[in-house]
Amino acid sequence: MSAPSIDVLGIGNAIVDVIAHADDAFLDAQSMPKGGMALIDEERAEAIYEAMGAGIQASGGSAGNTIAGIASLGGKAGYIGKVKADPLGHVFTHDLRAMGVHFDTPAATEGPATARCLILVTADAQRTMNTFLGACVNLTPDDIDEQIVASAGITYLEGYLFDPPHAKEAFRKAARIARDAGRKVALSLSDSFCVARYRDEFRALIDEHIDILFANEDEIMALYESDLDTAIAAVSKSAGIAAITLGAKGSMIVSGSERIAVPVAHVSQVVDTTGAGDLYAAGVLHGLSRGLPLAECGRLGSIAAGEIISHFGARPETPLASLIG
Amino acid sequence: MSAPSIDVLGIGNAIVDVIAHADDAFLDAQSMPKGGMALIDEERAEAIYEAMGAGIQASGGSAGNTIAGIASLGGKAGYIGKVKADPLGHVFTHDLRAMGVHFDTPAATEGPATARCLILVTADAQRTMNTFLGACVNLTPDDIDEQIVASAGITYLEGYLFDPPHAKEAFRKAARIARDAGRKVALSLSDSFCVARYRDEFRALIDEHIDILFANEDEIMALYESDLDTAIAAVSKSAGIAAITLGAKGSMIVSGSERIAVPVAHVSQVVDTTGAGDLYAAGVLHGLSRGLPLAECGRLGSIAAGEIISHFGARPETPLASLIG
Repeated sequence: MSAPSIDVLGIGNAIVDVIAHADDAFLDAQSMPKGGMALIDEERAEAIYEAMGAGIQASGGSAGNTIAGIASLGGKAGYIGKVKADPLGHVFTHDLRAMGVHFDTPAATEGPATARCLILVTADAQRTMNTFLGACVNLTPDDIDEQIVASAGITYLEGYLFDPPHAKEAFRKAARIARDAGRKVALSLSDSFCVARYRDEFRALIDEHIDILFANEDEIMALYESDLDTAIAAVSKSAGIAAITLGAKGSMIVSGSERIAVPVAHVSQVVDTTGAGDLYAAGVLHGLSRGLPLAECGRLGSIAAGEIISHFGARPETPLASLIG
Repeated sequence: MSAPSIDVLGIGNAIVDVIAHADDAFLDAQSMPKGGMALIDEERAEAIYEAMGAGIQASGGSAGNTIAGIASLGGKAGYIGKVKADPLGHVFTHDLRAMGVHFDTPAATEGPATARCLILVTADAQRTMNTFLGACVNLTPDDIDEQIVASAGITYLEGYLFDPPHAKEAFRKAARIARDAGRKVALSLSDSFCVARYRDEFRALIDEHIDILFANEDEIMALYESDLDTAIAAVSKSAGIAAITLGAKGSMIVSGSERIAVPVAHVSQVVDTTGAGDLYAAGVLHGLSRGLPLAECGRLGSIAAGEIISHFGARPETPLASLIG
């Protein structure tokens, strides 16, 4: 097996975020469960946009954020995801390539527009997301470049990929190629509603295919329909490594019978938690791709997550390589 | 004269900002004078965008930022400016209206795209701007709604309006209507290169039409081609009130023989100075529209500028009304 030419390859829904402040009354009026991610159609996206406050736009997407984090940490990063050849697609593509990420999935020339996620950030720094999947529904197995996947040390898949109709097949194809090439496969459970939608498939997938699993407490409990301790015991028998984020309590990395408690990084002001889990995954994956001890991987995850929650938006503003010491 | 139905009406180039970090070497390689604003065509905009790093997009435009500040301070605000009916124009329009700003200048349905400003922010928090004026070139005197201007307590004009070919006439028409209606007219000199382009016209305009002038030290010295003290003496005989920003040294408000030194507001971290002058103007204009003493107007300017330089982007993230105590 040759040395990987890409450290971490992310495959996910390619999304541009529109981020604005909102209050709890707005979430209530719009029937948005706080902290969740809802799938919406274009008409609803337009209606929410009209109702929401002034905001900023920034490239996003869960795996896209993670991959931007890998590049920012100094790793060799690649991405597969589907935009449309429209202004937002141009922005998404620019932002990854400008960070040195290998990204050449062909943009769709017809069909729905590039995906948008309308993110409402409340005063408690929590984010509530509304995703119009747009062009992401056009990601198919044909977009999975076998050579790229086989050359990546770790292929990282977001659970949200199960939502667009054909992306699930693309997901499975990528996981198969990676395993056949003797590479590692990582999965993020994305959110607890996503877990509820695809619980059985996720559990089977983790048993068969997944070397590194990322989840928060809600997601891991939703996966096993149990309390946290039971879920951790279950996942330790299923995935090779599981990294469970615990909000302000930090995270826990589980590997067989090992349990490593990872503290959060100090942050002077928490502004917007969008992307916290994505950047935590970036730090951990970067450490794993470098063969670092698990505790050190966790430390990198905490530092990357700490940077992202200190400002609006889910892509690093400060080069993460300058923060990891 | 009836009470104004709008406190401050801004007229300016309607622009969406694309903001990214850059280092000095990038500015050198691109021949960009640091801290300046260059007018560029669409081809150059595309070339710079390809070369620059990952960024965020946010509504901008000098007067647009000021007017967003007025709304954020709790004032009744209006705006006149020209976007195209395209995705960025939609974003610009949304962001003003979402703040409660009266904005109904018809969007252009043909011609160039909505204006973009590519902003490079260096580690010293300085911003270097590259503006593709796009649809702004289609602002004409017909877009100046006489009733709106006559009903606004203060009409605020940005010097940059002299760049697009017909906007200057629109500018003069608005100033005339405001004066005829017994209202105040304010002008920002925008930047020292802009002053150099239109020095004689600006000086004549200030003598005849301008009640409130905003400038930084470079701009006021460029206007009078003199040192700062001489320039301040000259402007005190020309404009009713002049508010001169002095960077980290604060600002000075000049009214006849009066000189009021205004300190800066405390800011824990200066991230991006984009919009500092625009938001300073917002604070001062808000105070003037409320009939507050000049020193208090200056204090509001410093607070608004302090908020904007603490984060990426030139529109307030924290409601300014909550900061002015």
